[in-house]
Amino acid sequence: MLKSISPFEKIALVGIGLIGSSLARVIRREGLARHVAISTRSQTTLARARELGLGSSYTTDVKEAVRDADLVIVSVPVGSSGEVAAEIAPALKPGAILTDVGSTKASVIAQMQPHVPAGVHFIPGHPLAGTEKSGPDAGFADLFENRWCIFTPLPGTDPAALEKLSEFWRRCGSNIDTMDPQHHDMTLAIVSHLPHIIAYNIVGTADDLQSEAIKYSASGFRDFTRLAASDPTMWRDVCLHNRDAILEMLGRFSEDLASLQRAIRWADGEKLFDLFTRTRAVRRSIIEAGQEIDAPDFGRHAIEHPVKG
Amino acid sequence: MLKSISPFEKIALVGIGLIGSSLARVIRREGLARHVAISTRSQTTLARARELGLGSSYTTDVKEAVRDADLVIVSVPVGSSGEVAAEIAPALKPGAILTDVGSTKASVIAQMQPHVPAGVHFIPGHPLAGTEKSGPDAGFADLFENRWCIFTPLPGTDPAALEKLSEFWRRCGSNIDTMDPQHHDMTLAIVSHLPHIIAYNIVGTADDLQSEAIKYSASGFRDFTRLAASDPTMWRDVCLHNRDAILEMLGRFSEDLASLQRAIRWADGEKLFDLFTRTRAVRRSIIEAGQEIDAPDFGRHAIEHPVKG
Repeated sequence: MLKSISPFEKIALVGIGLIGSSLARVIRREGLARHVAISTRSQTTLARARELGLGSSYTTDVKEAVRDADLVIVSVPVGSSGEVAAEIAPALKPGAILTDVGSTKASVIAQMQPHVPAGVHFIPGHPLAGTEKSGPDAGFADLFENRWCIFTPLPGTDPAALEKLSEFWRRCGSNIDTMDPQHHDMTLAIVSHLPHIIAYNIVGTADDLQSEAIKYSASGFRDFTRLAASDPTMWRDVCLHNRDAILEMLGRFSEDLASLQRAIRWADGEKLFDLFTRTRAVRRSIIEAGQEIDAPDFGRHAIEHPVKG
Repeated sequence: MLKSISPFEKIALVGIGLIGSSLARVIRREGLARHVAISTRSQTTLARARELGLGSSYTTDVKEAVRDADLVIVSVPVGSSGEVAAEIAPALKPGAILTDVGSTKASVIAQMQPHVPAGVHFIPGHPLAGTEKSGPDAGFADLFENRWCIFTPLPGTDPAALEKLSEFWRRCGSNIDTMDPQHHDMTLAIVSHLPHIIAYNIVGTADDLQSEAIKYSASGFRDFTRLAASDPTMWRDVCLHNRDAILEMLGRFSEDLASLQRAIRWADGEKLFDLFTRTRAVRRSIIEAGQEIDAPDFGRHAIEHPVKG
């Protein structure tokens, strides 16, 4: 495919944090639009985006950013989706595609859909990509490479618009999946939301103890601190907006933990050994699925000791 | 310090897994002994150690390995410590230093000490270093670089022997700490044992659901699979041999999780935001303490995309 053919004339990025700024970078690298309009509420963040040269135009007026855009990508904490949709709705161009990147889908749909004007293609989306960093400096063009982007299209979605958006994300490096919003929210509750909540919790428990958790963190604890360093606003909103699925998964987790705790108390070595053997195989599967690097300790060692290693 | 001065004439490595084989490699690189005797129960493992050229002599007869050794390092699952001590005791040389690398200390001391002959310096130790891999192929000479090695010396320990062993570990790359066994076991329960148990548990919960946990693991879940891929025998033994401290920490963790779950159920956004902000600072402290790399996503991205990144 020729890079000179821009699938979109104008793309508006609403929100320019980790995801928005990674999109800005890959759009430029792959030539996916002639004009990239960047909008965010914060003057400071907008100024930084301009310094980084992330787009073609910069404004805190989101209506101005989305005017005439063929594709509008909302990359804000999920709790702000409704407010953004209400604000941009009058300025959206008929025929435009409106999408988002939120980690919860049923809630985002409920918040945004009522505001979407007839003639605008609203296609909820979620790229499963990120790091523990946030803000416009944290983004990078490869973020979406070989990561899944999940769409949860509404009934009656125009197949041509869906294909156009899918092609955009493929050119950002993603693999595409579609599913219904409820299935998305339940799946993400187990693969993403529960791990983050557990990480936040264990780091909090250790911090409360004023133990030597920091000094001796290389013995296991530090692995959890990465997820627990994720953006607080984003994750507060995820917890509030995927509550039922998260509570269901927390219930299962606690039930399993009680059973494991009982095995420890009663010295049931066989049960412990069986679980620990089963879980080892799961990591092997993730590496084989191309979703994890096959290097000990996440490859940290290769970075710490590049010469001697 | 001249590398040609070997602090020990003969070192015996009892067990040649991740830790034992890393020791073998760093001992050779740093010239820390003239003779390295390797012993393990498994014929297959011993043959592999010989193929890798890890030592000077190889035997499944542990008494033969420790005979005339100035330093004996026991690197076996903690549940086997007592058996090993009983077997080697009659063959230990007067004046020899006997140490171990076990993740629990009170239990190892209780198992080994009764067998240690008068005139042998028994100094329990624990290098806080490892990866999720196991076996003689998994070791590497840099494993202990900038990691802590904790000693839990018994009353009446000869200071000269302790200093000699400390110097050995410093030359392996470690920083030295000493503490009492109970404090070690409680500290490790929070920084290492609890994280491993929680990781095992969440990976088990996700696996039970037959969800798309593997496919979509990059959204958080995969971070836990590393710890949950650790050696099952080693971790079964840790659970069985540090039971009280682990149960205490599991109690605190569950209490905190119940409180967090309640905040989610009752939509207490402020409480969530406060916790998520506090935990973010903990990771920053770990990076500043030099115990974690300052690269997003554990630096995985740099390894996955070394050219484009």
